[in-house]
Amino acid sequence: MQLYQRDAIESAVTIDAAALEAVEGAFAALGRGDVVQPPILSMAIEESNGEVDVKTAHIRGGERFAIKVSPGFFDNPKIGLPSLNGLMMVFSAKTGLVDAVLFDEGYLTAVRTALAGALASKHLSREESRRVAVLGAGEQAELQVRALQLVRDIDTVDVWARSRESAEAYAERVRGLGLSVNVHATVREACEQADIIVTATPSREPILTAQDLPDGVHVTAMGSDSPDKRELDEEVMIRADAFVCDTRAQSETNGELKAFARRPASAAPGSGSGGGSAGFGADGKPPFKVYELGRVIAENQRLRVSAASITVCDLTGTGVQDTAIASFALARLS
Amino acid sequence: MQLYQRDAIESAVTIDAAALEAVEGAFAALGRGDVVQPPILSMAIEESNGEVDVKTAHIRGGERFAIKVSPGFFDNPKIGLPSLNGLMMVFSAKTGLVDAVLFDEGYLTAVRTALAGALASKHLSREESRRVAVLGAGEQAELQVRALQLVRDIDTVDVWARSRESAEAYAERVRGLGLSVNVHATVREACEQADIIVTATPSREPILTAQDLPDGVHVTAMGSDSPDKRELDEEVMIRADAFVCDTRAQSETNGELKAFARRPASAAPGSGSGGGSAGFGADGKPPFKVYELGRVIAENQRLRVSAASITVCDLTGTGVQDTAIASFALARLS
Repeated sequence: MQLYQRDAIESAVTIDAAALEAVEGAFAALGRGDVVQPPILSMAIEESNGEVDVKTAHIRGGERFAIKVSPGFFDNPKIGLPSLNGLMMVFSAKTGLVDAVLFDEGYLTAVRTALAGALASKHLSREESRRVAVLGAGEQAELQVRALQLVRDIDTVDVWARSRESAEAYAERVRGLGLSVNVHATVREACEQADIIVTATPSREPILTAQDLPDGVHVTAMGSDSPDKRELDEEVMIRADAFVCDTRAQSETNGELKAFARRPASAAPGSGSGGGSAGFGADGKPPFKVYELGRVIAENQRLRVSAASITVCDLTGTGVQDTAIASFALARLS
Repeated sequence: MQLYQRDAIESAVTIDAAALEAVEGAFAALGRGDVVQPPILSMAIEESNGEVDVKTAHIRGGERFAIKVSPGFFDNPKIGLPSLNGLMMVFSAKTGLVDAVLFDEGYLTAVRTALAGALASKHLSREESRRVAVLGAGEQAELQVRALQLVRDIDTVDVWARSRESAEAYAERVRGLGLSVNVHATVREACEQADIIVTATPSREPILTAQDLPDGVHVTAMGSDSPDKRELDEEVMIRADAFVCDTRAQSETNGELKAFARRPASAAPGSGSGGGSAGFGADGKPPFKVYELGRVIAENQRLRVSAASITVCDLTGTGVQDTAIASFALARLS
């Protein structure tokens, strides 16, 4: 049984083509129905403003599976600690024995999340996409761009963040990737010329509206991963020509689809999207077809039918990504 | 962050009064409603005849919580490995940081399970209980007796097991605890003079019937911990003057209450207990009141009303026991 610390894991696993392929293969297996993926175990530690999630999945026939524990303790920054943390345990799928514990402190989660964003753009965005609007200025907002560079010839990033200061700091970092970066004061402005929009915020209210979408854009929304977060106005999803998520069940509870699942039959009070009530059924189902990224990949579905098509992909983060990246990491480390 | 291997953990934690008190305190907290305990995460690895369970719980205000991973790979003995395994991670409930990983290989689970059995007998069996019938001859069948010695002056063990050879080997081991041990050919014979009956088998069919119960006996059933296992005929529970379980939700899915939850309104075909259909409602509820051990302890409920009362406790194993024993272990180790 091997133990690995973050430093070693960071050296072994980077955002590269091989890691992308590992995660793509996992999504394809999910799409083929070859994955056992139980619901997320989630526990709140209210008195500390904390929560802990456990995710796992097994790719049938796979040599190993991972179990990931992700604590999020949101008062930690007040005492100089990061909010997010975590580790992955890798087990033999033959014997159940622990092969390794990866004390990655959430690093592998950040990587596999960025890679999933790249896969969404690989399969949904226009091939000639060059310009990316990024909403958010955190670590994931940067990693998403780095992963996108694996699949599209990105040359320009337009960033918006709630804090101008964070956006400026982000711009400096991303210029280091050899990209032209512009900081914008509004979401609308940032998105105006986007081929791809990536939302990577911890927002609890929609930040992107249908009016912000240029023709032909692809949107990857990866911020919402819990029942109280969301980034997309309902109209963004209704306007899209194709809506894709990583897993429908998770999108309905933790992702953007919960906007529909929660909505009552009559118009919801306090909704930001005035005219959006047409088309919402009393059954809580969204008024559009829901695709899943795994099947898009496995079946090579072409959901973009023209250069003007608008596509949206909502990522909540799946156990099979964790199993894929942990197995990949262990193969590189050992 | 500390790592501890099984040897060190075995030296630090034994079946003793202090460990019993730790687990009793955890059950009391559960009974008072002071525990967050999400449903078990469970995943099957069918091609290896394996499964993995993840349990956790947080006692509000507690300094630490544990997450336990328990793989069970039932073909392992064919290649000389134990079926059961596992580890516990201990986290700070203030920051979510990992305090320790206990590579106990299931040892702490075995201990906390035995202690829960002792607590059931402490609160439900006659104080003057001396004689224990044990069904099963595995590790837990032995630990249950050792834990019972903490709460009752046990002098005699009557053992039955499917394999006579295992029962004889068990008898030898348990004689080493200073007890008189008799091996029996039938369950009925083993239980005839029992003050306490402990069932500790991996049975998938009932092994204990109402006809096996002497007056005044207390039964602890701890074998059934998954949807396909059971040890008690329905009539055992119906006959009991009080039925207690560790948590009702788990007993209904993994424990003995599933005998009722599953049963259709009409008599179930293939049931072993001919006359047992009277009293089963179409609502899948058992025809008796269900108590929970945590509340029995927290409220000091006296469910035994006379020396002839029959009591039954069904234990499926709870996350709060894991948090309790892991915190206890870490306090002793560090």
